[in-house]
Amino acid sequence: MSAHYHTQHAPMGAFASFTIGLPQSRGGMGQSLSGPADQDVFAGYRKLGGEGAADEKWQLLPFYIEPDVPAAAAYTSEFAEEGAADEDAPVMLDADEVKRELRWASDIWSHDGFELKIYSPFGRTESPETLSEEVARLAFAPVVQLEVGFDNRTSSKAVELVFGLGHAAHQLRPLEDTAPDLAGFALGRGMGFAADPEMIDRRLQALSIFYPKACTDHRGLHLLGPEGAVVFRVGAGEQASFPVSLGFYQSGVMTTGLTASYYYTKLFDDLESVLRHGLAQHAYYREQAENRDAELARADWLNADQKWLIAQATHSYWGSTELLWDETEKKPLWVVNEGEYRMINTFDLTIDHVFFELDWQPWVVKNTLDLFVERYSFRDSLNVPEGIDTDGGISFVHDMGVMDQFTLPGTSCYECGQITGCFSQMTMEQLINWVCCAGTYVLATEDREWLQAKRATFIACAESLLRRDHPDADLRTGLLKFDSDRCGPDGAEITTYDSLDVSLGQARNNLYISVKAYAAWSLLEKVFAEAALGETEWQAQAVAATDRAAGAIAAKFETDCGMFPAVFEDGNRSRILPAVEGLVFPHYLGLVDGLKTRHAELFDKLGQHMQNVLQRGVCLDAKTGAWKISSTSKNSWFSKIAISQHVLRSVFPGLEVASEAGAPADAVHARMQQTAVIGQYAMVDQVNVTDVVSMGSRYYPRIVTSCLWLREGK
Amino acid sequence: MSAHYHTQHAPMGAFASFTIGLPQSRGGMGQSLSGPADQDVFAGYRKLGGEGAADEKWQLLPFYIEPDVPAAAAYTSEFAEEGAADEDAPVMLDADEVKRELRWASDIWSHDGFELKIYSPFGRTESPETLSEEVARLAFAPVVQLEVGFDNRTSSKAVELVFGLGHAAHQLRPLEDTAPDLAGFALGRGMGFAADPEMIDRRLQALSIFYPKACTDHRGLHLLGPEGAVVFRVGAGEQASFPVSLGFYQSGVMTTGLTASYYYTKLFDDLESVLRHGLAQHAYYREQAENRDAELARADWLNADQKWLIAQATHSYWGSTELLWDETEKKPLWVVNEGEYRMINTFDLTIDHVFFELDWQPWVVKNTLDLFVERYSFRDSLNVPEGIDTDGGISFVHDMGVMDQFTLPGTSCYECGQITGCFSQMTMEQLINWVCCAGTYVLATEDREWLQAKRATFIACAESLLRRDHPDADLRTGLLKFDSDRCGPDGAEITTYDSLDVSLGQARNNLYISVKAYAAWSLLEKVFAEAALGETEWQAQAVAATDRAAGAIAAKFETDCGMFPAVFEDGNRSRILPAVEGLVFPHYLGLVDGLKTRHAELFDKLGQHMQNVLQRGVCLDAKTGAWKISSTSKNSWFSKIAISQHVLRSVFPGLEVASEAGAPADAVHARMQQTAVIGQYAMVDQVNVTDVVSMGSRYYPRIVTSCLWLREGK
Repeated sequence: MSAHYHTQHAPMGAFASFTIGLPQSRGGMGQSLSGPADQDVFAGYRKLGGEGAADEKWQLLPFYIEPDVPAAAAYTSEFAEEGAADEDAPVMLDADEVKRELRWASDIWSHDGFELKIYSPFGRTESPETLSEEVARLAFAPVVQLEVGFDNRTSSKAVELVFGLGHAAHQLRPLEDTAPDLAGFALGRGMGFAADPEMIDRRLQALSIFYPKACTDHRGLHLLGPEGAVVFRVGAGEQASFPVSLGFYQSGVMTTGLTASYYYTKLFDDLESVLRHGLAQHAYYREQAENRDAELARADWLNADQKWLIAQATHSYWGSTELLWDETEKKPLWVVNEGEYRMINTFDLTIDHVFFELDWQPWVVKNTLDLFVERYSFRDSLNVPEGIDTDGGISFVHDMGVMDQFTLPGTSCYECGQITGCFSQMTMEQLINWVCCAGTYVLATEDREWLQAKRATFIACAESLLRRDHPDADLRTGLLKFDSDRCGPDGAEITTYDSLDVSLGQARNNLYISVKAYAAWSLLEKVFAEAALGETEWQAQAVAATDRAAGAIAAKFETDCGMFPAVFEDGNRSRILPAVEGLVFPHYLGLVDGLKTRHAELFDKLGQHMQNVLQRGVCLDAKTGAWKISSTSKNSWFSKIAISQHVLRSVFPGLEVASEAGAPADAVHARMQQTAVIGQYAMVDQVNVTDVVSMGSRYYPRIVTSCLWLREGK
Repeated sequence: MSAHYHTQHAPMGAFASFTIGLPQSRGGMGQSLSGPADQDVFAGYRKLGGEGAADEKWQLLPFYIEPDVPAAAAYTSEFAEEGAADEDAPVMLDADEVKRELRWASDIWSHDGFELKIYSPFGRTESPETLSEEVARLAFAPVVQLEVGFDNRTSSKAVELVFGLGHAAHQLRPLEDTAPDLAGFALGRGMGFAADPEMIDRRLQALSIFYPKACTDHRGLHLLGPEGAVVFRVGAGEQASFPVSLGFYQSGVMTTGLTASYYYTKLFDDLESVLRHGLAQHAYYREQAENRDAELARADWLNADQKWLIAQATHSYWGSTELLWDETEKKPLWVVNEGEYRMINTFDLTIDHVFFELDWQPWVVKNTLDLFVERYSFRDSLNVPEGIDTDGGISFVHDMGVMDQFTLPGTSCYECGQITGCFSQMTMEQLINWVCCAGTYVLATEDREWLQAKRATFIACAESLLRRDHPDADLRTGLLKFDSDRCGPDGAEITTYDSLDVSLGQARNNLYISVKAYAAWSLLEKVFAEAALGETEWQAQAVAATDRAAGAIAAKFETDCGMFPAVFEDGNRSRILPAVEGLVFPHYLGLVDGLKTRHAELFDKLGQHMQNVLQRGVCLDAKTGAWKISSTSKNSWFSKIAISQHVLRSVFPGLEVASEAGAPADAVHARMQQTAVIGQYAMVDQVNVTDVVSMGSRYYPRIVTSCLWLREGK
């Protein structure tokens, strides 16, 4: 195992992860956390002597921290003085001698016949209200499935296998106390792991379960112990594997602002019923995971590094998802938490998740868009020069709150006024995001009922886009140039690239925003043309706006260097990859060929731009060769790199770019995420690609944009 | 403020504390924790310039950690590069320049006209089922009350006062979003603080609330901020103080094994209603706290150090208390958690809490004793030599579980088998504890209904005590000498002094246990004589057993040195203070004069023992002069010292002991608890009194035994 990184193994919608993978580190089961949990995970085996006596030590995967002093020292000076010296302590396996294979929905470790498999399967779901209870339980059970196995066919000695947890937030409890059909341990009412009591050899609980002199009661357990495990046995000459189910359960209302509980609490009474379900349905979940694994494996147009990036990113996406039930409206409430920041449905993430979500759960896109319209939209005025009509129009806030705390209608927890940098308003961008997200949803799914229901919103968005170019129709140039008065007189709008340099931070007259607005118009053309709307006048306006944007952007091309500037102001000469980001939407919808014909000059120049920025020292890092979002910042975002790569290959298929921007860069990107310094946070979006450190956006869902690559072979 | 220590400010029965007091440390609001929380607490003032502009910096009490980098750095590299240099940063007041006064139910800090008062009042309660809702709400509301004030009468400048929290587990939410009548902030649904919106000048929320360039939204808040505060204003020439209520709220079932919720959830709908109640009833709680303060202050037979120890200990007691509602039985379920260990109703603590609880809440004693009988009693066999009847009898387990996880009937989480040290069985001691606790309860309260209901239990206990001396009546010696077979063939029973040396660890033939058993018999004499029982035969047996025990113990006196050995085996020569601990029960009940007459020899020898052990190098630490539980261990227990001191002064009033064992030792004890190394855990029971470090039992309730001292002046 040369790769050193944590991976989040998460159920769908439980905002919970079983995180392991970084050698000599803790992880384990975490609920609603901003990073990995802090539990020891014990998984391994020992070979037994001929007579059944242990003649070899436990060999454990390196997912725990070896104690300096035994746990009993907290209770008694006696043990402390005895010291930690323990000849029988388990052997922590050398990470480099363990084989690891991360697949799309599985993670498999093996060593000398031993195998630990973790399944975090996902499948296509429909909205919970439409499902039978049986289907809903299979789809949304808050479980992660494990298998502990050993191939002992060539051996004459039996082996024991162990799976357990330690260093939990408090003492574990044996599930058998209240559920005799479950062998395993729980932490209060909220999380635990279980195996079939018929399958286990025994269970362990103690202050130190591997300490041979550990104290235990008449059952062989010490309930004061923070370590608990189940032990399986594989006889000589046999091969066997044993399912273990990990479950999460949070009861009651979890939120403020809106009143909502976890949806799964409508399907399961408690943790025990979740674990029972997990064990009973183990084969179903394993098959589902293996199907996903096979699908990714079959994508032969992707190299191994790309597949790894997709797998790791998908795992972190699910870890941030939270499927709630709105107790007031009696309907599902979908949340993606923003990784370590835990902001609720941050719109700049929603827009990037849309492609993955349309593949697996299109109903969540609609769910989120609806809430943005109903609760998180607003109408503003514009900061315009004297004499110009200040009326702005509809837009949407950056997020819906943070850490299960929903903000008041029309407000986010992120956006502030009177500033020009990080934490300023993102009004233009979120307006574009709603149009791109809703347009993509409606054109991809052909959900005409929803389209009709949102007629007024689409029109209001079109109006708002136009007015942000200029309130006076005659003075429109095709570029968004006026900030919302939510910024106050001294502020300026920013973009999702808030923590990058000015090349991407400023929204006004911004290349990235301009191309994304162009894309939004190209979608609106089609939306208004849909029979369900038949808004022919608006269609014509949209066509004109698309053309106007194309022309305005093309005119900003700098022929001397063959690139666009990042901002069309103040002589800015930064070069950015997201010049082409917006094209992902019309491409996804099959609209890009038409646009290429209509706006050949724009596409030609964007192609030249990409050829020229994808050079060492521009948007390929001079030191490492990694893709850089901006030529003037070391901070690169993997979610956005993934989109740019997809657009480059799909929209500009014949373009000749530096060969090192291809597979060699994929390898650079994968290796960075696999360093301990970054991999300790599972998937990280913001990476300083020069010095290879994480800059922010750790434990982050957004890199699921890489799943766009799966479309490239189709 | 020369004293450096945390104090737990806790509601009754919420298993929650607002912990502050240790300079340059975090604390704040903690729920169900094993130690202080990890929040910054901001409390202080700033003087305003004549024109209202700030011309002086915030002066804050030192209950936070000054940041190395601004909080915004997590979101953006921009702020990080700007650095933390902030000329306007608050001044952390020098702890030595702040006056602090800890009272029985108040904690008051003052500096230059500023005052922060914290009230954690308590009063006498009756069992919840018997109370009107109004009385119950006043008694059991999960609130702690604060007052922030300033005496500005001699100044020509206005001042601002602030109270707030930072570095919380996640972002705060403004209460005004859902409760316009509350100004303040909450952390999800579980905890928060509020003031009257009419009284505040403004509220602050930001990544760094004292950073003058902090970003805020249109309301002047930044909801992404983990710091929140309310600001008050006191005009020039005025004096004012402002109430702030801190509230806790945990909804739903909290436990496993038994199904129980917090009792207060039957009285309050949510956190907001708790906070409203706190603010509305501020005057009531302040008066209740001041009454308690005055009662302790009036105890003129106690020196200041003794009063401080009582106040600090009482605060930590309440922080460990948890009043639940058994959802199955529909009745209250009282829990005292065992400090940092969080074991449920550890019986060796219950027995020591009985005196305090009889003063303030006698119904909890009955509640706990009932549960010990109904669920946590058992019958055992004895480890006796071949040929002796092995039948043991009734006893009780050490505890009822840990961290809201109740164990199965008849089992504890602590006790293990096959061992001779820490974690072994405490069968003899818990049997004695039930007798002493129940006897004290019934004789002190004259609750004859309960006495009758427990007739069989009292008799079973007497039988069990006799059989542990010897199953054959003719062979009884007056000493408990047979271990429970729960120890297994290789184990031996221990006592509550589990982590001390063998002088107190072994239960069999143990001086401490023997005297406590003698006390138990002296109570049983009276219990069986009560008209409600009229068990004259058992009364006679008890009288005989009391006499037998007295004689047996007296015979162990070593006349050569004038002391008892700690263990009547193997030539043990350790000397222990708890020789007299058991006498606290008959003394409490007014029975000791009769015993002195009957067993003059025993009392004479115990008196000599105390005179001789209270010498430097024996049970006064050779280096520090602190009282030591055992001559052969540095580990001394403050809860037990307090009992020994009370017994010494009350049962042996004329005894001449070394003068340094009196007030000088009180000062030594108080100073130790006030060192940062111990005081960081609020009240600590197990202290290495030679080297002055905490050995265990941190954040601990049991030292409330010191409240026995309040009886000495009566």
